[in-house]
Amino acid sequence: MYLIMAATLAVVLIWANGLLGSAFAVANDPLPHWNDGKVKQGIIEFVARVTDPDSPDFVAPEDRIATFDNDGTLWAEQPYPQLLFTMAEVDALVAANPELRSQQPYKALLDQDFDYFKTAEEETLTELLAAVYADRTQAEYEAEVQQFFATAEYPTLGVPVTEVTYLPMVELLDYLRDNGFQTWICSGGGIDLMRQISEPFYGVPPQQVIGTHIQKDWREHDGEMVIWRLPELVLVTDKEGKPIGMDLHIGKPPIFSAGNVRSGGDIPHLTYSQQQQPSMQLMINHDDAEREFAYAEPDNASLNASAENGWTVVSMKDDWKTIFAFQQ
Amino acid sequence: MYLIMAATLAVVLIWANGLLGSAFAVANDPLPHWNDGKVKQGIIEFVARVTDPDSPDFVAPEDRIATFDNDGTLWAEQPYPQLLFTMAEVDALVAANPELRSQQPYKALLDQDFDYFKTAEEETLTELLAAVYADRTQAEYEAEVQQFFATAEYPTLGVPVTEVTYLPMVELLDYLRDNGFQTWICSGGGIDLMRQISEPFYGVPPQQVIGTHIQKDWREHDGEMVIWRLPELVLVTDKEGKPIGMDLHIGKPPIFSAGNVRSGGDIPHLTYSQQQQPSMQLMINHDDAEREFAYAEPDNASLNASAENGWTVVSMKDDWKTIFAFQQ
Repeated sequence: MYLIMAATLAVVLIWANGLLGSAFAVANDPLPHWNDGKVKQGIIEFVARVTDPDSPDFVAPEDRIATFDNDGTLWAEQPYPQLLFTMAEVDALVAANPELRSQQPYKALLDQDFDYFKTAEEETLTELLAAVYADRTQAEYEAEVQQFFATAEYPTLGVPVTEVTYLPMVELLDYLRDNGFQTWICSGGGIDLMRQISEPFYGVPPQQVIGTHIQKDWREHDGEMVIWRLPELVLVTDKEGKPIGMDLHIGKPPIFSAGNVRSGGDIPHLTYSQQQQPSMQLMINHDDAEREFAYAEPDNASLNASAENGWTVVSMKDDWKTIFAFQQ
Repeated sequence: MYLIMAATLAVVLIWANGLLGSAFAVANDPLPHWNDGKVKQGIIEFVARVTDPDSPDFVAPEDRIATFDNDGTLWAEQPYPQLLFTMAEVDALVAANPELRSQQPYKALLDQDFDYFKTAEEETLTELLAAVYADRTQAEYEAEVQQFFATAEYPTLGVPVTEVTYLPMVELLDYLRDNGFQTWICSGGGIDLMRQISEPFYGVPPQQVIGTHIQKDWREHDGEMVIWRLPELVLVTDKEGKPIGMDLHIGKPPIFSAGNVRSGGDIPHLTYSQQQQPSMQLMINHDDAEREFAYAEPDNASLNASAENGWTVVSMKDDWKTIFAFQQ
């Protein structure tokens, strides 16, 4: 009788231990939507290394800065959400002024004739910039962006545009913050568009967003002082504009950075980050035609630079358990 | 006997209570270098109001942003420390190239003929900008600034330039951070000069510094990619440039801001801050010729704007127990 009780107890204890053990493992997996493998392991090891005060690679919290590209790194870019915003604004403009439908640059945009913009005159582009992004107060522009995100659909995925963020990357942002990192966005997108969604989408406050920005001035308008938007680009934070933007907003290179394969746009971003040691760089590769989109660069520049510099290439197909929350 | 013991005990308790009470008061005075009065009381009441979750004026930590002008608000500006840096750089340049001593703009600067700069040609100013601030890597410039602060004296006070910060303001920065505020500098000074001292002097990290900045590019230099400084101003963050700088770096007005009387340079700064409600604005008045310097504005614009808008005027003479730590 004692033996049976002891044996039963032993079985129960082993079973409970197994159960608790696996619950413990799940609860302690900081990146549950990443598949196990070298990439996930490398991220976790890097974070452990720079946050352990006894490690020779320890980095003080004030230097734990991480920067993320946005289009194609944190959310889908086929098409760019900002292009959808631009087209929605032009739609509204043409509805109010039908004669614009046949005039450039509106016609090209509505016909999705993007080649037009490659050779367009600067004045035409300035006109578009003014019509969609400038000649209004900062507060008015912010309200238009909010309105867009409250209603817009993402056509190629058939979901609201608010749902095209990558679940594993949102999880990675959380994980880094839990380890004392300050998380930033550094993207070619417009700074004021991204700032309207950076906190709810990514937990990144507006002051940690780096993006393309226009000239503004401080003037009286309708009886009060306002920030007024002018149709003139100051800095385009794509390609070599990314280190310039990080220097302007942060003042030093980040120790962790993530970009993606499409146009080579993140090569300077990751190169600048690597000037910090220790540091880690991720290059997201869009190789999952089934769950997202598969696309590459004609010259393979981003993957070549990754191989040459030892950056970590993330395969969306192999490294991510889930891409979008709506696919769960 | 019992009565005597009881009376003794009562006296001891009252005495101990008084002692503990005053020790408690000192330990709990968050601004010990501010004199008691309406200004100190107003700051403490504002902070209590916006940090109490039960107050109708409660502000969530992510919106508790405080901005401080630097010259004349956080450290002395008679003369500007950045002017001392500029003159030290020009001294070194002239020592290496003696023919420059008699050429403009170097001659005017070394002769302290500042009127010259009011009518100088733009090319002359660009030459000075290039000679002192540009045509070098970001890392080289940062090293020069570090070198300056390691050795320079502040002539009018006869102390190292590292000692001209205002003790009550450093204390106020700490107090705000202890209450969940994010503290920023927003000054007409050069962003890259201030970033070299903002953390050790004020506890403000480089990414929370807003200042005048020049054009830069990302280029190869001596076999590596660098941030290269170009002799072209992009944004001067004085006067109406302050709201523009805060919009660029923060993306929304601060709820607390501090500037000073000298040139009206902080009127747009404080006006922008007041667009947040609740909010508080301080205007530092240099009225202490004995312990610092006494100076006013010919048109009294900053004090007039303070009266008109309900900003809190800080008298250095009356409101500050100590100005500099070296005077203690």
